[in-house]
Amino acid sequence: MAKFAERMKRLGTETAFAVSAEAARYAEKGNKVYPFHLGDMNIKTPENIIAATKKAMDGGKTGYCSNYGIPELRKLLAEDINRSHGTAYETENVVIEPGGKPVILKSLLALMNPGDEVLYPNPGYPIYESQIEFHGGKALPYTFVEGEKGFKLDTEAMEKLITPRTRFLIFNNLQNPTGAESSHEELEMIAEIVRKHGFWVLSDEAYFDIRYEGKSESIVSFPGMEERSIILYTFSKKFAMTGWRLGAAVGPRGIVDAIAKINVNDESCSNHFVQYGAIEGLTGDQAGPREIVRVLKERREAGFEILNSIEGIRCYKPAGTFYFFPNVTKAMERLRCGDYAKFRKDALARTGVSFCTRLHFGRPIPGEKEKYIRLAYSGIDVDQIREGLTKFKEFVERE
Amino acid sequence: MAKFAERMKRLGTETAFAVSAEAARYAEKGNKVYPFHLGDMNIKTPENIIAATKKAMDGGKTGYCSNYGIPELRKLLAEDINRSHGTAYETENVVIEPGGKPVILKSLLALMNPGDEVLYPNPGYPIYESQIEFHGGKALPYTFVEGEKGFKLDTEAMEKLITPRTRFLIFNNLQNPTGAESSHEELEMIAEIVRKHGFWVLSDEAYFDIRYEGKSESIVSFPGMEERSIILYTFSKKFAMTGWRLGAAVGPRGIVDAIAKINVNDESCSNHFVQYGAIEGLTGDQAGPREIVRVLKERREAGFEILNSIEGIRCYKPAGTFYFFPNVTKAMERLRCGDYAKFRKDALARTGVSFCTRLHFGRPIPGEKEKYIRLAYSGIDVDQIREGLTKFKEFVERE
Repeated sequence: MAKFAERMKRLGTETAFAVSAEAARYAEKGNKVYPFHLGDMNIKTPENIIAATKKAMDGGKTGYCSNYGIPELRKLLAEDINRSHGTAYETENVVIEPGGKPVILKSLLALMNPGDEVLYPNPGYPIYESQIEFHGGKALPYTFVEGEKGFKLDTEAMEKLITPRTRFLIFNNLQNPTGAESSHEELEMIAEIVRKHGFWVLSDEAYFDIRYEGKSESIVSFPGMEERSIILYTFSKKFAMTGWRLGAAVGPRGIVDAIAKINVNDESCSNHFVQYGAIEGLTGDQAGPREIVRVLKERREAGFEILNSIEGIRCYKPAGTFYFFPNVTKAMERLRCGDYAKFRKDALARTGVSFCTRLHFGRPIPGEKEKYIRLAYSGIDVDQIREGLTKFKEFVERE
Repeated sequence: MAKFAERMKRLGTETAFAVSAEAARYAEKGNKVYPFHLGDMNIKTPENIIAATKKAMDGGKTGYCSNYGIPELRKLLAEDINRSHGTAYETENVVIEPGGKPVILKSLLALMNPGDEVLYPNPGYPIYESQIEFHGGKALPYTFVEGEKGFKLDTEAMEKLITPRTRFLIFNNLQNPTGAESSHEELEMIAEIVRKHGFWVLSDEAYFDIRYEGKSESIVSFPGMEERSIILYTFSKKFAMTGWRLGAAVGPRGIVDAIAKINVNDESCSNHFVQYGAIEGLTGDQAGPREIVRVLKERREAGFEILNSIEGIRCYKPAGTFYFFPNVTKAMERLRCGDYAKFRKDALARTGVSFCTRLHFGRPIPGEKEKYIRLAYSGIDVDQIREGLTKFKEFVERE
C-alpha cells in the first residue's frame, strides 16, 4: 500500500541473489549444488585477525569511534597503499567505511548532480548502474572487446561517450565479472582521457590484492590521477572478511571530508573493534592472505583446465580476481539454446552447477552477439570444482 | 578543488562533535573535563553478549549474511517488540541495519520525493533536519512547550503545518535532547492527526528501553498506526553497544523490502557475527541491561539534585533517556550572558564542564525566547557528575 518515492523505480539490485535463491530451492529438494554463482568466500578469516578483534572487544573498544575511523588504521592503510601505488596519501586521505560498496553510494552523493553523466563498465558490477540512476545521474556504459589474450577496454568507444556533463569514470581494474585487467598501455590511455576531459575517477580496487602472478597496477598511480581519484578499498577479499563489512574511501582530503560528513548522517561510524582486526591484517603475520591466494590459485588451475577443454567454450585464465567469464556462444548454439536463462536453468537442473550469466552484470549493449557466463570460485572447494565442471562438460558436450 | 554536488550544501551534521573537539583541546592543555556533551556510553557491553559474538566468529560467521540480516535475530526482535508494543510483527517485518541511524536515511530515500514535506521535532536530533533536506525534502519543525511537569508537544501548532504534500512525521518519544515523553493522551492526539491526514510515521525508539520508572509507550501501538509506521530500533543504548553499529527498521513488509533493497546497494548487509551477540542480548541473561539502567538512574538522581538546586536553573527529571535539558534563561541573565556559545565556553574554561546547548539540536524557532542546555549523563561517572556540577553551580551562582 506504500507509495514509494520515484527514485525507487530506478533502484537496481544484484540479480545474482535471485540465482542464489533458485540454487537454494534446488538444494532443498535434496539435490547437490555446485555454487559458482556468488562471490562470497568459503575461506575463514585468518586467526590472528580474529584474535586481535577479540582483544579489542575485551579492551572496551565497544563505544563509538570517529566517523573517519580510528587514526591508526587510517594511517596504516595510507602507508600500505602508498607502497603499492607510489602515492603520497596520509591519515587525512582515508575514511573507513562499512565495506567497499558504500564508497560507490557516497562518492556519487558527494560529487554527482542529477543529470550528470557517469561512465561505468558493462558487463560490470551491477550496483554502479543502479546507484548512478538512483541518485538521478545518467549511466553510460563502456564495454570490452575480446582480444587474443583477454578482454580489452574499448577506449575509442569510451571516449565517444564523453560530453561536457561527464562527471565520473567508474573504473574497475581486475574486473568483476570478466576477471580482466588493463595493460600498462591501456591504463595510460585511460589516464590521458581523464586528464584531457577533467572528470573524476572512482577506482574500484576490490580485487587489487587477489592475484596469482604479476603485479597489480592502479590508474591512480598515473600522473595527475591522485588528485582526481577516489579509491574504493575493501578488507573483504584479501583477508576473507566479507561478513565483517569493512572498507575505506581513499582520496583527496576534500572528498574524504565530504564522505565522512555523510557518515555522520548515515551509520555514524564503522564498527569500532573490527578496525583493530584490520590493523592486525595489515601489520601482522601475512601467512593468512598468502594462504587465501594459494587456495584460490589451486581452484583457478582446476577450473580453467576443465572449462577450456569443453567443446564450444573459450575461457581466459584470470591473473587476478576469482572469476571465470567464458565465452559460451558456440556451446549454446550446440545445445540449440538461444536464451541465457534457459541455459542457466537447464545446467542447474541437469548438473547442479549454478552460475550467473552476462545478464546479471548490466543491461546488454545493443548489437552484442557473443554470449558469456560468470563462474565464481571463491565459495567452492577444488574437488567440488572438478566434480561440478566435469558434469557441466558432459552436459554441454552431450549429443 | 572538488566541485561538490549541490545537495552537499544542504547536508548538516552533529555539531555536538565540534563541542567534543573543543573539550578535547581543553583537556590536552592539562585541564580536567567533565564530559556532559556527547551521548556515547562509558559503560561496557555485557559480557554474555561479547562471549556470544566471539563464539560466532569462531564458528565461521565471517562471510556475508542476508541483506535483511539473519532470520533468527529478525524473528526474536519482532517477538520482543510485539511484547512491548502489542503489535503483530513477523520475521518479514524486520530488516537489520548497521545502527538505528541508517533507518532515517533509508526511510526517507524509500518514501520521500523531492519537494515532499516532513514534520520533525525541534529541538531534536539534528540528523532529521539534515537528511530531509539532503534528499530534497522540505523540513518543517514542530516544537514543545514547557508545562508544569515537563515538555508538552504543541500538537495544535503541529497540525497547522500539515499540507497535502506532508509525507512523513518523524516522532521521537523519549526524546533527545529534552528527555521528554508524550502522555498517553498526547500520543492519542498525534495518532488521530496521522490517521486523519494519512501520512507516514518514522518512530525513533532509540531510548524506548532506557527508563527509570513507568512504562514506555509507542505511537505504533495505537489503532491504524502499525501499517503506516517504521520503527527505528537500536541495540546501542539498551545493551551499551554504541560502537557495534547494530539496529533495525521494523514496519510493513513493503517498506522493509524497499529498505533491504537499498541495503544491497549500500553496505550489502550488517556485520554477520555481531548479530549473534544481539541474539544473546535479547534472549540471554538480562542482568546486563538491568545494570545499565541502574547505573544511569544513579547518575540521574545525582545530576538532577544539583542542577535543580542552582539559582536560575529549572530542570525536569527525565523518566527515560539519559539527558537533562534544563532551562537556563535566568542563569544566563544573572551572568549577563545573552549568547549560547559564550555561556558554554565560559563554563568549560572556568569549570571544565562541557555540554551542548539548544543550538546543537536544530535551528531555533522564530520567536523562541527561553534558553536551554543539554547535559548527557551516559558517558560520565556519578562522582564526576557531582564534582562537575558542583563547580558549575558555583560558576552560575557567583556574585
